[in-house]
Amino acid sequence: MTSLDELPIRDDLRGLEPYGAPHLHLPVELNVNENTHPIPEDVARDIIESIARELITVNRYPDREFTALRESLAGYLEGTEPGSGITREHIWAANGSNEILQQILMAFGGPGRSVLGFPPTYSMHSIIAKGTGTEWIAGERDPGFLISPSTAVEWIQKTTPDVVFFCAPNNPTGTALGLDTIRAAYDAFDGIVVVDEAYAEFAPAGEPTALSLLEGRPRLIVSRTMSKAFAFAGARLGYLAADPAVTDALRLVRLPYHLSALTQAAAVAALAHAPEMLAMVDDIKAQRDRMVEELTALGYSPWPTAANFVLFGGVDEPEALWQQLLDRGIIIRNLSIPGHLRVSAGTAAETTAFLDAMRELTPPRP
Amino acid sequence: MTSLDELPIRDDLRGLEPYGAPHLHLPVELNVNENTHPIPEDVARDIIESIARELITVNRYPDREFTALRESLAGYLEGTEPGSGITREHIWAANGSNEILQQILMAFGGPGRSVLGFPPTYSMHSIIAKGTGTEWIAGERDPGFLISPSTAVEWIQKTTPDVVFFCAPNNPTGTALGLDTIRAAYDAFDGIVVVDEAYAEFAPAGEPTALSLLEGRPRLIVSRTMSKAFAFAGARLGYLAADPAVTDALRLVRLPYHLSALTQAAAVAALAHAPEMLAMVDDIKAQRDRMVEELTALGYSPWPTAANFVLFGGVDEPEALWQQLLDRGIIIRNLSIPGHLRVSAGTAAETTAFLDAMRELTPPRP
Repeated sequence: MTSLDELPIRDDLRGLEPYGAPHLHLPVELNVNENTHPIPEDVARDIIESIARELITVNRYPDREFTALRESLAGYLEGTEPGSGITREHIWAANGSNEILQQILMAFGGPGRSVLGFPPTYSMHSIIAKGTGTEWIAGERDPGFLISPSTAVEWIQKTTPDVVFFCAPNNPTGTALGLDTIRAAYDAFDGIVVVDEAYAEFAPAGEPTALSLLEGRPRLIVSRTMSKAFAFAGARLGYLAADPAVTDALRLVRLPYHLSALTQAAAVAALAHAPEMLAMVDDIKAQRDRMVEELTALGYSPWPTAANFVLFGGVDEPEALWQQLLDRGIIIRNLSIPGHLRVSAGTAAETTAFLDAMRELTPPRP
Repeated sequence: MTSLDELPIRDDLRGLEPYGAPHLHLPVELNVNENTHPIPEDVARDIIESIARELITVNRYPDREFTALRESLAGYLEGTEPGSGITREHIWAANGSNEILQQILMAFGGPGRSVLGFPPTYSMHSIIAKGTGTEWIAGERDPGFLISPSTAVEWIQKTTPDVVFFCAPNNPTGTALGLDTIRAAYDAFDGIVVVDEAYAEFAPAGEPTALSLLEGRPRLIVSRTMSKAFAFAGARLGYLAADPAVTDALRLVRLPYHLSALTQAAAVAALAHAPEMLAMVDDIKAQRDRMVEELTALGYSPWPTAANFVLFGGVDEPEALWQQLLDRGIIIRNLSIPGHLRVSAGTAAETTAFLDAMRELTPPRP
């Protein structure tokens, strides 16, 4: 049997392990920040009808410009952030926001260029940088995982990156990001600012997001996903809003026909049900707040979170506690942040199961 | 309005135009080598049922290892090439064979490395090389668009590439490739040999393909697609067969969860109907042969083809003829090969429409 080492792979890949959140099937899965609510039955029915129509012409290549999908996504964003002026010309989409970020770095990063991020943050940011040959620069956050405008500007001035990645709210900490930080970063250099807003819908309602900053900022890109709020992780649909010139840049690096006709049809059908899909978001936020409250009562230190998950500190032995939960059929995430674990908000029942187990596993504190 | 030039895109992308086969909707579309036959209704029904089952858990990430799909693809290949010993461990898949080729170059090509191809060939080969920072080396074919073993070996010895791309049958010429050339190329260096067999199912029945060479050749990769023989261009499913170590290498560069649950379900359902789907292939080959025969009778020079399209020479003014066909609602492809046009085999009716128009547009020859 041939081993990987015997193949002429790139030297910078040698010895690497593939990305791998454990892929286990358990009664309570709260490890990868999925939306734990299945999509409603009437939405599923519309999606199926929409896909069935597409199958008639599936022998043909899909719409390379996914025009109907961009129209739907623009309508959704303009609806959540009225007055942002987002039209389909501002929208781009791909197979998950990972592919969105990859295309951004292929166009604006790559060999000889660098991207600045602020760990702890979404682990794929640095992996995608590596995959595209872009140097990854790890900035440092302020206490409490925050990034003040001056911290962002200092890091940009010190490291002169070509691209800056923010994650708002940040994964895995849940930390919100002030719009003042994004504005300051944008003005501090001539590069691209990417705000990964995968969890934006779980932030406090009514607060403006980076979408409100797009007007007049052609180097700003706001990345989103349907995986979380739309409960669509399995369908793989990431997208972005930005100046139309940014989408023109991405047309130079995207693989033609990268979005299947079935993906386009499924997403358009789901977006037509946005209010119904987003109704689940309120329930998830309630469960998340319950987790914060009860973990605090148990003596843990959950960080303030604007996402659908909670990072909590005060764990003496994270690996042991992770394993004890696993033994009870509950999987959460150990991201190797000392003393911390991360848990996704579940349904009411899943959240109860997690909190019950935590009560059982937590020794009474003095 | 911001223009693309004002954005900090990579210098090597400046001035490029995006990939773009004209995307027009016309009564007879024979321009991008699609399978012009819609999928049968009973197959569509199975696909829909399969997708409907997946939708129940679409809030969850898909199987990152697409195990059921790899099993189905292995079964299909082993069925078409009995004794090749292909199991699911030899299979990898992605959103179209473009993504397959991109992942291969991310793992085995990239900055500081090079890939040798033999134009005229599939235009995406050089585009994907550029996109991944891999130097593209254009080898030269023998007369008749052939590549003899000695020609392949000479080019490899002269240019010392890291990867060699073959396309068999070749797009856009339709030319078959001898297994002796693949064997000789493999033995001539220590790099990766990729055989893009997107059109393999249209080659003469019973002839072995590069799949028969995989055993004992861990640096050989055979790339395939469901776009053509399976009439699945809209569903985006490319795949490869290779040593399991190759799939391990691709796990290091693929974006996690790159294949949606819907794509996986659709492809598995279609593969279960392989004999029915492939029945269309015989009809397409018959139409292709009819095109070759009648184009010859009209005084054109079609090249021998083992694919679902015909490249024909003897066209005095390709652009003018292309436009005249377009004016009659028929789109074929002008690939800027002097004196040539390419046409995909259509249904019987589409082929008749094309040939009737050609008769009308071709002046009687002396």
